[in-house]
Amino acid sequence: MIQAALQALLGDAGLRIGGDLSAYERDWRGRYPGKALAVALPANTEQVAATVRLCAAHGISLVPQGGNTGLVGGSTPDDSGRQIVLSLARMQRVRALDAANLTMTVEAGCILQAVQVAAAAQRLLFPLSLAAEGSCTIGGNLATNAGGTAVLRYGNARELCLGLEVVTAQGEIWDGLSGLRKDNTGYDLRDLFIGSEGTLGIITAATLKLYPEPLARMTALAACDSLAAAVELLSLAQTRAGAALTGFEVMNANSLALVRKHFPQLTQPLPAAPWTVLLELSDSENEEHARTLFEGLLEAAMARSLIADAAVLQSQAQSKAMWHLRESIPVAQSQEGLNIKHDIALPVSAVAAFVEATDAALAAAFPGLRLIDFGHLGDGNLHYNVQAPLGVAAADFLTAHEAAINEIVYDAVGHVGGSISAEHGIGRLKREELAARKSPVALGLMRAIKNALDPQGLMNPGRVL
Amino acid sequence: MIQAALQALLGDAGLRIGGDLSAYERDWRGRYPGKALAVALPANTEQVAATVRLCAAHGISLVPQGGNTGLVGGSTPDDSGRQIVLSLARMQRVRALDAANLTMTVEAGCILQAVQVAAAAQRLLFPLSLAAEGSCTIGGNLATNAGGTAVLRYGNARELCLGLEVVTAQGEIWDGLSGLRKDNTGYDLRDLFIGSEGTLGIITAATLKLYPEPLARMTALAACDSLAAAVELLSLAQTRAGAALTGFEVMNANSLALVRKHFPQLTQPLPAAPWTVLLELSDSENEEHARTLFEGLLEAAMARSLIADAAVLQSQAQSKAMWHLRESIPVAQSQEGLNIKHDIALPVSAVAAFVEATDAALAAAFPGLRLIDFGHLGDGNLHYNVQAPLGVAAADFLTAHEAAINEIVYDAVGHVGGSISAEHGIGRLKREELAARKSPVALGLMRAIKNALDPQGLMNPGRVL
Repeated sequence: MIQAALQALLGDAGLRIGGDLSAYERDWRGRYPGKALAVALPANTEQVAATVRLCAAHGISLVPQGGNTGLVGGSTPDDSGRQIVLSLARMQRVRALDAANLTMTVEAGCILQAVQVAAAAQRLLFPLSLAAEGSCTIGGNLATNAGGTAVLRYGNARELCLGLEVVTAQGEIWDGLSGLRKDNTGYDLRDLFIGSEGTLGIITAATLKLYPEPLARMTALAACDSLAAAVELLSLAQTRAGAALTGFEVMNANSLALVRKHFPQLTQPLPAAPWTVLLELSDSENEEHARTLFEGLLEAAMARSLIADAAVLQSQAQSKAMWHLRESIPVAQSQEGLNIKHDIALPVSAVAAFVEATDAALAAAFPGLRLIDFGHLGDGNLHYNVQAPLGVAAADFLTAHEAAINEIVYDAVGHVGGSISAEHGIGRLKREELAARKSPVALGLMRAIKNALDPQGLMNPGRVL
Repeated sequence: MIQAALQALLGDAGLRIGGDLSAYERDWRGRYPGKALAVALPANTEQVAATVRLCAAHGISLVPQGGNTGLVGGSTPDDSGRQIVLSLARMQRVRALDAANLTMTVEAGCILQAVQVAAAAQRLLFPLSLAAEGSCTIGGNLATNAGGTAVLRYGNARELCLGLEVVTAQGEIWDGLSGLRKDNTGYDLRDLFIGSEGTLGIITAATLKLYPEPLARMTALAACDSLAAAVELLSLAQTRAGAALTGFEVMNANSLALVRKHFPQLTQPLPAAPWTVLLELSDSENEEHARTLFEGLLEAAMARSLIADAAVLQSQAQSKAMWHLRESIPVAQSQEGLNIKHDIALPVSAVAAFVEATDAALAAAFPGLRLIDFGHLGDGNLHYNVQAPLGVAAADFLTAHEAAINEIVYDAVGHVGGSISAEHGIGRLKREELAARKSPVALGLMRAIKNALDPQGLMNPGRVL
């Protein structure tokens, strides 16, 4: 029995069998209730490797899990009761911080916010930032190549990682931890494991890139009459501010109306507009310099009639409140009822026409349907979400129309060379869409790699591929 | 006969058999003279794919070639006369430039400088820059994940590429061209092909990241008494200038002395110093702002005694002359005679101690040996080169001592977690070093991937692995 072997290996602190395991077995949205054979909580990399070897010997499949904050059913077991959840939750050590090299090495179970805080204690910045940062783990961020709000300037999780430690499907330890900015010694194994959602191996630690902390951060809101104007504003901001532009979010009128409805206590400094832009500048000089840059940018945008109204937030607290406003949109959506999420990426140049045409197609097909569109315009990533018409039961609407709505949206995405998963990954939710929409050549290459690295098919099976 | 089939496929313009093929058969340093069965020069991706399928059917191996400017013997055939060189030289089209999306799509045979020029025509920047830019191709840059002088700010070739078109070892075309900044739909095939040196497939086109062109670029020279001081200066510059710091090169006294000897006409604004730093700032505001930033930085560095002397270059022409000075070092080395190159990367925090200890070890073992050390300190990449003692015949010195010198250097590199190939790749030159020094787990993963994607072993065999 594998249970006895796991017990001997991991001890009481490292193994949970029976009792209420629902925190490990269910995703937080409750879409994928599962049943685990056991939850393994190894204390270190050697225990992870030994657990994998045991599972391989018994032909038992593994589901790696970080903070279990994912949106695509990638980190919870199926309902067979025969999979083992391997949680990295006990591996939370910061192994090293090298300020002169601008790197830190952390274990996979480190909460993202803890990584940010450890960097900030040295006046350094770890720029990855997303709504779940208080509970998601860096291992999960890397396994799914998380995006978030700072991709425009700093890239995805992938671009913020210099090296990995991984336990392979054979239970070997690959020590690829490295603080090097240049290393051309063979194939890029690091980036292959990043974003593979636990299907090729288990990330146990990572060496991350840090940056000097900017001396000032400042945000502004701007009201645009159209998404096309917001895209032009982005281009102007990139030209004038260069790398100082660290955030560029858009929110349509429905998004902010929904926040106003469910969170009336949140201040919205600008009157309602078709599109509201949240801009962030990070300045390595000082606040005065940032303010001058911001004011010059907004004046130029006004002069070109790109924006109708704007407000520079005067304090850190006000800036924080604006980010909170932005992050309240998905929460307001939940309060409003079940909805259909589309985490899409498009070429920035295609965004405005895409939204205009797809909005129209959906409105024609489903009169009254509400589009809650917001997201990271700076990197072409929209959360193009759909809420049932007012007065229509959301559950019924989804049952009846989700597939048809997805088809309209994803066909339009494909038409402009976009992506059906910008930052949330594939997991179980989009596995069939991927199989239907990804190029057969790419799928063939992916399957060949999966078979080569995990011939037994025990690493998070049924996800991605 | 494959020759007839290739002739039918590629025509006279696309196939060269017999005659003087040495431009394709020899690397420019003349270290790897080879003999090709034929040189295929396909005009488009479909012809590349058909050529690969023909070779696969005949069991003939292929050596992809771009500008043939590599340093590790990766792009020329062996001397068997049985390999086909597949040159991308005729595929030079810029397929698209999307200014609003800050991307351009180019064919693999585009010369790097042509890519830079096409971007600049739209007042955009393609930041990849290296000494061979006038003749190297973007396909080769990506196949070897080229580095260069702007990695500190913009990353390697890898970070500047959003999508690829690749012909697989089976002669299928993977259309992974994409201008997306976020795309989490499966394994990262793009980064697997980047840096694989033609051993997994042939890159035929790429979608590249562009940036708004900075409004001002300015350089300065600074004299440091020690490499440790230069490292501290780097940290100070990163904190004060943030992303505006786009270049940080170091040159030891021997390097500049060798340039003075062979190119006495080149102006060296500062007196000789143990280490001279070349700094570059790129400013999105204006030249005045850049100058103020530079002067403030250099004053602060003087106040902390990090630098003994400094000069801000006042014109574009002067700045260009300083980069020319830096790039003349390897040329001066060639003029001085045969030498041993080490393209190493180290954690920035380890560079100063590494150089001190390794210099001492080499000096003790080989009295009189001259160390010509220079490189991209901003990303930890040193060209830690060795010249024979004055008056000793270089060829004899290399024959006698190259292996022992490499062992001292590479052992020391391994000791601090460095890389034996920062930006030049592995090719044939470092294949055995890689096999001896890379972790067996990593090598095992690499071999599994190679076997999965190229089971016949026909793609650039004998390189990397």
